[in-house]
Amino acid sequence: MMKIKVNENFAALKESYLFSEIGKRVRAYKEAHPEKKVIRLGIGDVTLPLAPVVVSAMEKAVKEMGVKETFRGYPPEYGHDFLREAISAYYKRKGVKVAAGDVFVSDGAKSDVGNIVDILGKNTVLIPSPVYPVYMDSNVMSGNKIELLEESEADGFLGSPCVLDGETYVIYICSPNNPTGATYDRAGLKEWVDYALESGSLIIFDSAYEAFIHGDYPHSIYEIEGAEKCAIEICSFSKTAGFTGTRCAWTVVPETLETESGFSLKKLWARRQATKFNGVSYPVQRGAEAALSEEGVKECAALVDYYMENARLISEALSEKGVWHTGGVCSPYIWLKCPNGLSGWEFFDLLLEKVQIVGTPGEGFGDAGSGYFRLTAFGSREDTMEAVNRLKTIL
Amino acid sequence: MMKIKVNENFAALKESYLFSEIGKRVRAYKEAHPEKKVIRLGIGDVTLPLAPVVVSAMEKAVKEMGVKETFRGYPPEYGHDFLREAISAYYKRKGVKVAAGDVFVSDGAKSDVGNIVDILGKNTVLIPSPVYPVYMDSNVMSGNKIELLEESEADGFLGSPCVLDGETYVIYICSPNNPTGATYDRAGLKEWVDYALESGSLIIFDSAYEAFIHGDYPHSIYEIEGAEKCAIEICSFSKTAGFTGTRCAWTVVPETLETESGFSLKKLWARRQATKFNGVSYPVQRGAEAALSEEGVKECAALVDYYMENARLISEALSEKGVWHTGGVCSPYIWLKCPNGLSGWEFFDLLLEKVQIVGTPGEGFGDAGSGYFRLTAFGSREDTMEAVNRLKTIL
Repeated sequence: MMKIKVNENFAALKESYLFSEIGKRVRAYKEAHPEKKVIRLGIGDVTLPLAPVVVSAMEKAVKEMGVKETFRGYPPEYGHDFLREAISAYYKRKGVKVAAGDVFVSDGAKSDVGNIVDILGKNTVLIPSPVYPVYMDSNVMSGNKIELLEESEADGFLGSPCVLDGETYVIYICSPNNPTGATYDRAGLKEWVDYALESGSLIIFDSAYEAFIHGDYPHSIYEIEGAEKCAIEICSFSKTAGFTGTRCAWTVVPETLETESGFSLKKLWARRQATKFNGVSYPVQRGAEAALSEEGVKECAALVDYYMENARLISEALSEKGVWHTGGVCSPYIWLKCPNGLSGWEFFDLLLEKVQIVGTPGEGFGDAGSGYFRLTAFGSREDTMEAVNRLKTIL
Repeated sequence: MMKIKVNENFAALKESYLFSEIGKRVRAYKEAHPEKKVIRLGIGDVTLPLAPVVVSAMEKAVKEMGVKETFRGYPPEYGHDFLREAISAYYKRKGVKVAAGDVFVSDGAKSDVGNIVDILGKNTVLIPSPVYPVYMDSNVMSGNKIELLEESEADGFLGSPCVLDGETYVIYICSPNNPTGATYDRAGLKEWVDYALESGSLIIFDSAYEAFIHGDYPHSIYEIEGAEKCAIEICSFSKTAGFTGTRCAWTVVPETLETESGFSLKKLWARRQATKFNGVSYPVQRGAEAALSEEGVKECAALVDYYMENARLISEALSEKGVWHTGGVCSPYIWLKCPNGLSGWEFFDLLLEKVQIVGTPGEGFGDAGSGYFRLTAFGSREDTMEAVNRLKTIL
């Protein structure tokens, strides 16, 4: 047997049985009740096909790869210029200034969220709870000190820095949030940017769901003054353009992000990516570029609108029945308080047995999610409408 | 300014100006001599287009992504089963047993080489020199203790464990080697596997150039008995199927890789990938699957053969002129000793000025590369033939 040492921090990771446990319970129910139609409102993945303009662009790019004159070898590690420029222009249309040279294209937001720890030292990391598990797990793997910022119904699942004492942190923020759907307004984000500037903290801002924002909420942390001196932003084509199976994302590391110790985070990330990454597939980058074109933005907005109408239907039914919930306005997720003091798993079983609806127990996103439940808008309209009618019968 | 701590190991990285310096010198020469035709034999990237069967498979997959019934969302983090099975079958055809479940598909060998350090602890790392810089840089970033295994003309640039004293290492081996093209035979690799088994070491075997092997050399470390207990293998479609711009690779982490401290490397890598990676683009995986089909293997072999004829022409000319070199037989790289005791950079300038050929000075691959020079076979036949004729006039 090998005598080499491994990264023993992995032993401190919690095993997640969330989705396998859900699968197990659903299978058992279906076997016992083969005549019942089970509707899944637990899906965290898009279901509508890629926009036509994206498909055309990718087909064209694949053809180019088959012809000597237009074949492309290694892509630039930080992304083809055409895509970095398109992303910069996408920000510009929203009134946000992001230089193309500060944009790093990658294969996914999960990769960037996971890999960003490579360039950071031993800091205290502040992670909201409940939240997307990768923030926690990637920091556990690095042996970093983690503090949880517990959120609740009282703050609408939008934590505030007012409870902090000025310590320097690496702060993770996801807005619109996965799983709660809660979304910071300008004032809420400004509090965080101000805190980071005062305390010398770094914000890692996950804006993967920004395309779902409706109304006057910030799409980017760079809409807040000073963010270019304290924040990295990670965004993705996954939910914006249905790229979960196509794989493309980006991270913005502004030139202006400097530490007192004299390091430029942009230089560190550039070196990390040039060393451990070799760029994104050319046809994928052409597809992503097309998604940000005028036509692409229109076609992708139609996909988002479809999901958002589902979200609206779910949210409306919950409101009608007086069930406390967040999300559904700027997010494909609806986060509801389980009725009658049920735990997330108890409510899961109730929904499955009484009305054959599958959702996700809040416990899957950290202890602070206990007693809450996530429904998603990624199903078909027909299923969502039927689910809403069924929900109304038991709430 | 931010007060957060960064990973200060980055400060210990050597800046590499190799390719920018080459670019600068070539530009300066061209400006001074616009009438001269410069031939690039320094390219480390493929130039022939994707095989037709790969293009067809990718086009079909892109079309599927545009139709609701065939659309695919998040891929499995370790690769679609169809591709893991195809890779396992590819090994089987070479007489090597690799279980599909031990295959982890990724976006590139560089990513896997860079990320594998995530699952390892503080070991002493043994890196051959000269070599592909990512082994060194990724370990410098992690602050690991590094020992160089200096290779030379005496050992044909194939280091042997006979100089080691039984210490436990993480050992990097690249065969066929980049940049030297030197390739271990069975006996040579067996020495390493035996050493690893005895010393409790781990071998990280980079077989990215295995498709270029001609003759009875091992294509996989798993051809050597016992390797499944001491070796991870990283391979790529980049050079096998011209995927440098398409992006797909794989890493084999056998179930049987266990440490005395009770860890399974496969479980660690599975957790690392599930946390920090979200799988490879579906159309890319379909293209990769096609490259491993019977037809695909034939078409891709034709690409390799084209480059290998270039390599043969270069190697033949060097032999004719009595220039010591390795590679060119199982590899698209030819590694030659600079004539008359010139340094790599001096020979670079000589070739550029006298015969307008661009190559890569050996110094770019570590100090042990000093006085050597890399030529590559990725140019066109016409250019390579002309370069060979020019070379003969000055050697």
